[in-house]
Amino acid sequence: MMKLNRVAAIVLILLAVFSTGVLAQEAKGNALVLQTDFGLKDGAVSAMKGVAIGVDADLRIFDLTHEIPAYNIWEASYRLMQTASYWPAGTVFVSVVDPGVGTDRKSVVVKTKTGHYFVTPDNGTLTLIEESMGISEVREIDENINRLPGSSDSYTFHGRDVYAYTGARLAAKAITFEQIGPVVNREIVKIGYQKAVMQGDAVLGNIPILDIQYGNVWTNIDKKLIDALNIKKNDLLKVEIYNKGNRVYQGTIPYVNSFGDVPDGKPLAYANSLMQLSFALNMDSFSAVHKVYSGPEWTVKVQKVSK
Amino acid sequence: MMKLNRVAAIVLILLAVFSTGVLAQEAKGNALVLQTDFGLKDGAVSAMKGVAIGVDADLRIFDLTHEIPAYNIWEASYRLMQTASYWPAGTVFVSVVDPGVGTDRKSVVVKTKTGHYFVTPDNGTLTLIEESMGISEVREIDENINRLPGSSDSYTFHGRDVYAYTGARLAAKAITFEQIGPVVNREIVKIGYQKAVMQGDAVLGNIPILDIQYGNVWTNIDKKLIDALNIKKNDLLKVEIYNKGNRVYQGTIPYVNSFGDVPDGKPLAYANSLMQLSFALNMDSFSAVHKVYSGPEWTVKVQKVSK
Amino acid sequence: MMKLNRVAAIVLILLAVFSTGVLAQEAKGNALVLQTDFGLKDGAVSAMKGVAIGVDADLRIFDLTHEIPAYNIWEASYRLMQTASYWPAGTVFVSVVDPGVGTDRKSVVVKTKTGHYFVTPDNGTLTLIEESMGISEVREIDENINRLPGSSDSYTFHGRDVYAYTGARLAAKAITFEQIGPVVNREIVKIGYQKAVMQGDAVLGNIPILDIQYGNVWTNIDKKLIDALNIKKNDLLKVEIYNKGNRVYQGTIPYVNSFGDVPDGKPLAYANSLMQLSFALNMDSFSAVHKVYSGPEWTVKVQKVSK
Repeated sequence: MMKLNRVAAIVLILLAVFSTGVLAQEAKGNALVLQTDFGLKDGAVSAMKGVAIGVDADLRIFDLTHEIPAYNIWEASYRLMQTASYWPAGTVFVSVVDPGVGTDRKSVVVKTKTGHYFVTPDNGTLTLIEESMGISEVREIDENINRLPGSSDSYTFHGRDVYAYTGARLAAKAITFEQIGPVVNREIVKIGYQKAVMQGDAVLGNIPILDIQYGNVWTNIDKKLIDALNIKKNDLLKVEIYNKGNRVYQGTIPYVNSFGDVPDGKPLAYANSLMQLSFALNMDSFSAVHKVYSGPEWTVKVQKVSK
Repeated sequence: MMKLNRVAAIVLILLAVFSTGVLAQEAKGNALVLQTDFGLKDGAVSAMKGVAIGVDADLRIFDLTHEIPAYNIWEASYRLMQTASYWPAGTVFVSVVDPGVGTDRKSVVVKTKTGHYFVTPDNGTLTLIEESMGISEVREIDENINRLPGSSDSYTFHGRDVYAYTGARLAAKAITFEQIGPVVNREIVKIGYQKAVMQGDAVLGNIPILDIQYGNVWTNIDKKLIDALNIKKNDLLKVEIYNKGNRVYQGTIPYVNSFGDVPDGKPLAYANSLMQLSFALNMDSFSAVHKVYSGPEWTVKVQKVSK
Repeated sequence: MMKLNRVAAIVLILLAVFSTGVLAQEAKGNALVLQTDFGLKDGAVSAMKGVAIGVDADLRIFDLTHEIPAYNIWEASYRLMQTASYWPAGTVFVSVVDPGVGTDRKSVVVKTKTGHYFVTPDNGTLTLIEESMGISEVREIDENINRLPGSSDSYTFHGRDVYAYTGARLAAKAITFEQIGPVVNREIVKIGYQKAVMQGDAVLGNIPILDIQYGNVWTNIDKKLIDALNIKKNDLLKVEIYNKGNRVYQGTIPYVNSFGDVPDGKPLAYANSLMQLSFALNMDSFSAVHKVYSGPEWTVKVQKVSK
């Protein structure tokens, strides 16, 4: 009886060990999400993915976008902020928009308070992530150990040899966050822009991005400020838009629930999928028609029109 | 001996249970295939994928295309028809081309007779799927239960919060088809167009789509009708093409096996990969040269030229 | 005791068998990487992926690019050469750039000396892979057995019915390389171009490709030849560029470490991520400004300027 129990115990232990292994397999890696300004016409992104699959054949790799306009760090920052929170904690984002490649800009991995990771040159790319998620710790990549083996002569494709390789190893749990390199104690690099604030009876804000497919204009004015202005559905808004302080647009726009609430070609104000104030023309492009674009140099001023 | 057998039995039962778990893991989810008119320049599609991975970290997610022309429901319908049958039964398609977002159009999940699922606004997107696959059942999404938790304030990004979330849960088997919501007993919304039919010694049909990369013109005239016209290789066809009843093109075109059968720049008629009659210029664009495009308003008339 | 040991032995054997099964599952398939000139606007690539997932629901499928310019076999060849070595041995590449579809060009699967596989029409697509990886064996696809069941009437979409299907089966280990079809004993088809060579005190070479996103000009002159010219950082190079023998560009360009080493708008020479000599304008497009493009008809001549 003892002996039988002993056998049963061994079996159960083996099964337990084994189950753990299998459970670990199911959840062993985190998703790896890539963003670049490389486009998809050449092989750069595919080489990055090949390197990642070489790290772990089972790694799940996704694209955020590879159509960031060349060198546009601001837009890289915005796309990360727009999407990262919809991915599970533990997801590793690799963002390579790197006009300073070859200069002394640092390569870092940032862990946010939400448990997401960002592998990127420290050049402003994380401006909006710091604000939206909060940064828990920054580590500089030690390229002596975190670099694709055999790539040491290659100094111009950090995206593949350092960022994709390191991001893949972190996502695959081949290394821990601590093994990235030393903690960085200074602030990350950030880009300045008009924060959304009340100013008298108006709200000032920025146009961080266009909803590019449709030409809609998105601001950084969130629901709390919309409420602070006491704006309700079907109220009219006086909207002014400035580029480096020069007024580009002025108009009166109804605040509505949906595009269908105004006739084709007419302007509307609405809360977009991020619950931020946005402007559009129904079935047309607000951006193209009014020559309004986006970036840190664009400012918007909004007031409620009294009835 | 009894006791030994008992141990062995326990072991085998444990292994069986365990194997089942593992086998279930291998096949546990179906593929999720996404189609939108969002493009890939912003983060919308990535946010949809993040939500899906949040439902099931092992979900296999693919893109049909995100380059449907903005608001073009007809083309969304065509792309689904063109590809869905090449995916295994059980595959869940999420198609978001939704000019009526915010209006009272219904959000549905359709199960076809072939066992494929389609998650989409009911706005005509399934016109050609109904004809090609047959519809088994339509359910309206109950958004009270099938919506990304925490998203209830967001009324403009159904693509992410309702469609991607629900499609992912269905593909991951987190919910059954029955848990989508109530059965819809009326017809789905459909778009009218010229069906392919014999009319005397001619065949009438529609140009549902261009082979856009090459500018080839595809019709909905299938092999059965080509055979009914008694067309054989190297026969000549009299081809007329109409837009809203106005003739845009008229010409005589040989029916051949392959592009190489005619000189560069010359027209040819052939059966495309869907075995439907198509027109092309070898090494040039039939569409651009003759200003022939596609959609429900285009009609084609084909006759065999007697020798 | 004997009997206990017997039970334990059975248990251990079962666990061993079972573990093997699970280990086999983890590594059972190789990655499948797709390249075409189809673009992503229609459903062609998605249909290819559906066919592959129908072969093996767990297959890991990736894109190299689908933006090869239509019919540009040279560029298809270059993209494979640029990326394949970054993928693990065993990876199966399917490349479909096929202006000769319907003619008597052969469909082949090539195994390289590095253990990578390439499924493609034999039309020059493997020119640069043969040089970079070396070819171990070429087999012609026997389409009687390696073709999507039910697709026999369809003669124009080899990409889906033969190439994707066969590539997926090879990657999923549903067939062995030997089951592709008979060994081909002649040479594969190759495209001629200017190899990189020393000629007196100059190096001659070719412009195989542009770094298209930025307009940088890449040559096939590798580090060994750069070293043979005794070029060091900050040396000046005399650069001439010819199209079909006609000089298109002549200039003197510094050889530097990184883009930041020259002012905005100024030319630089550098070793790209493949360690090949390249030319760029910092923050501008060398290609657009100087009308220099790429392909087998482009030649470059480089000399060191003596100080």
